Amino acid sequence: MKNSAIVLLSGGMDSLVTAGIAANEMDELNFLHVNYGQKTEVRELRSFRRLVEYFHPQRQLVTDISYLKEIGGSSLTDPAMEVEDYQERSGIPATYVPFRNGHLVAIAVSWAEVIEAQNIYLGAVEEDSSGYPDCRESFYQAMENAIALGSKTGSNLKIITPIIHKSKEEIIRLGLQLDLPFQFSWSCYKNNDIACGVCDSCVLRIRAFRKAGVKDPLPYAIDIDWNS
Amino acid sequence: MKNSAIVLLSGGMDSLVTAGIAANEMDELNFLHVNYGQKTEVRELRSFRRLVEYFHPQRQLVTDISYLKEIGGSSLTDPAMEVEDYQERSGIPATYVPFRNGHLVAIAVSWAEVIEAQNIYLGAVEEDSSGYPDCRESFYQAMENAIALGSKTGSNLKIITPIIHKSKEEIIRLGLQLDLPFQFSWSCYKNNDIACGVCDSCVLRIRAFRKAGVKDPLPYAIDIDWNS
Repeated sequence: MKNSAIVLLSGGMDSLVTAGIAANEMDELNFLHVNYGQKTEVRELRSFRRLVEYFHPQRQLVTDISYLKEIGGSSLTDPAMEVEDYQERSGIPATYVPFRNGHLVAIAVSWAEVIEAQNIYLGAVEEDSSGYPDCRESFYQAMENAIALGSKTGSNLKIITPIIHKSKEEIIRLGLQLDLPFQFSWSCYKNNDIACGVCDSCVLRIRAFRKAGVKDPLPYAIDIDWNS
Repeated sequence: MKNSAIVLLSGGMDSLVTAGIAANEMDELNFLHVNYGQKTEVRELRSFRRLVEYFHPQRQLVTDISYLKEIGGSSLTDPAMEVEDYQERSGIPATYVPFRNGHLVAIAVSWAEVIEAQNIYLGAVEEDSSGYPDCRESFYQAMENAIALGSKTGSNLKIITPIIHKSKEEIIRLGLQLDLPFQFSWSCYKNNDIACGVCDSCVLRIRAFRKAGVKDPLPYAIDIDWNS
């Protein structure tokens, strides 16, 4: 039987590298992108489209759950909440979108049942990331168990999170090894044109490229010394 | 602390009775309706609106996941698949919408986190129903576990399925005891105007009213002897 996967592809660096891993491991790729009313929706969708052109998946699906913007509770979706500049924090940051990844998994499960895919690849990162509860490995294990009980596909469906225990630096290095097009990816939480360079997501990305000793091909709104 | 609940309310008889139970048990109700591209979307939404007027919940939210229609795989959403007349079957019927209830739970969890509700009421029925995997109690227990691990609210959120082990007759009797307005509910899978009386959902409903010795206040497209 052909190994078939759905890859959740936001268009960020983590999902890009996850897609690169899936491309090596699977016979068939199906790319799923989810707009959720985030401020950088337009730019992330453009990244997704470019990565579709790059990877040539068997199928692609773009869905919309922008009711998450209406529900609110996150600076990524609420126009009244500003995306803050990076700082060391404890606890769950304001950029957390309530249970967003639960929705991503549910959409992938429905699609997997219909196209008979046996694997869902998802680029969650647990430690070296923002402290989102829906990025924990234990959550995906529990969801896999729930899917086995609550879907037609039963226990035939696996959730694969290949970079969940990697550092951002390791993720960049892996992407470079796989010769992936980081210039098509988008990580900034704030802007749709030029990456801000100061939000959590930009700072983690810039730091990872610097540690890997490589210049990020994306332009930034601030000056960055890539050699320091 | 106030006991606050989100009630998943499709507008069918099961969710109506579930809402009636929640109204007795909780201090605050919040009604959630989800359009998923089903053929009776318009009529179900109308039922929801009428039940909002009846129950006066604190908040109401209507969301759209009509990408489930695009994903397909169900006679409730696919225009090319007819909703079949009732017959005794084994296995999962064609009306099963792949992992639909997983989406309903995810939406409720996101909303619960923001409005700080501690309970999600859901009118799933396990035995005396259509054999949908996402109506099993074990699925909701597993989802509760996944939510505890993957959300901000953690283990403070309970999924309550008060009628999951009841027969359709018991559900009707309970609704009658609670004096609930069955005339505002809608169960038919097929029609938006007059209930067909022959789809799975109509047949189970009609049979339950007859067993309870009561005439269903809804009109049907076929003649029904309520006294036999």
